[in-house]
Amino acid sequence: MTPELAFQDYYPEDLAQCYGCGSHNEHGHQLKSYWDGEETVARITPKPWHTAIPGFVYGGFLASIIDCHGTGTASAAAYKAEGRTPDTLPAFRFVTASLKVNYHKPTPLGPELEIRGKVLEIKGKKIIVSAEVLVEGEKTVSGEIVCVQMPDTFRLTQNETK
Amino acid sequence: MTPELAFQDYYPEDLAQCYGCGSHNEHGHQLKSYWDGEETVARITPKPWHTAIPGFVYGGFLASIIDCHGTGTASAAAYKAEGRTPDTLPAFRFVTASLKVNYHKPTPLGPELEIRGKVLEIKGKKIIVSAEVLVEGEKTVSGEIVCVQMPDTFRLTQNETK
Repeated sequence: MTPELAFQDYYPEDLAQCYGCGSHNEHGHQLKSYWDGEETVARITPKPWHTAIPGFVYGGFLASIIDCHGTGTASAAAYKAEGRTPDTLPAFRFVTASLKVNYHKPTPLGPELEIRGKVLEIKGKKIIVSAEVLVEGEKTVSGEIVCVQMPDTFRLTQNETK
Repeated sequence: MTPELAFQDYYPEDLAQCYGCGSHNEHGHQLKSYWDGEETVARITPKPWHTAIPGFVYGGFLASIIDCHGTGTASAAAYKAEGRTPDTLPAFRFVTASLKVNYHKPTPLGPELEIRGKVLEIKGKKIIVSAEVLVEGEKTVSGEIVCVQMPDTFRLTQNETK
């Protein structure tokens, strides 16, 4: 059986370098997000050095995975809204306009983290996603990501990318 | 002349492991924040792999340095509010209750980033800080960090830290 591809596996190769979720960034977190019914889910185990206070996960890591799960969810939701599958063109790639993260309690470092996302709103090129981080079923962090379809200002010319 | 110590250099050794700003985290960003008049400032150059879309800085990295500059600024402000220097005890260490980040435009990857902070409010154990990221003088990102003095739930017992 072929393993299911993640939302991020459908990003065009030149846009799959993201430190948080790009499959072509060997230094990064390589977060992978999937549909789970109407919600989306990603699972990741932080490295021992992704710490804040010893024993707990670094808040910047948690913000990062919420961010990438949000933009990944937005791209998946955009395909769904158009009634087409993510292996069809044109490819969707969303970036973050704004990010809010609430840290409800310390997130223990060690266990796998589950990130669950919900699409709150689709309005043209803007998609709003909510997300939660759970450890062994307990919510520690929640967030909201305002995603926008990647504007042309993000595109480098051929020369700049070399 | 002795170089000026950063806010984070005064964190107690067992609380200086943070991936974003801990001087004892060899894998991390080791952000260092200082007073600059009434504002605070930090400067950091992202690594080439801290990318989002090629040529631009990863939003999670930007959220991370805003977060750490916020909690660092909060600790410095707490010492100042008590009229004592950061080499006196008890040490202040703040954690993030919530974080908001607005991405106004893409942040080019390559140049040094300047992060400027302002203390908006000090209310008991809660300190609110605003922050901006500038590249060559131009603001690309802004944020607000609600910081709280580290609660006891973050303290591990002696056995757990071993």
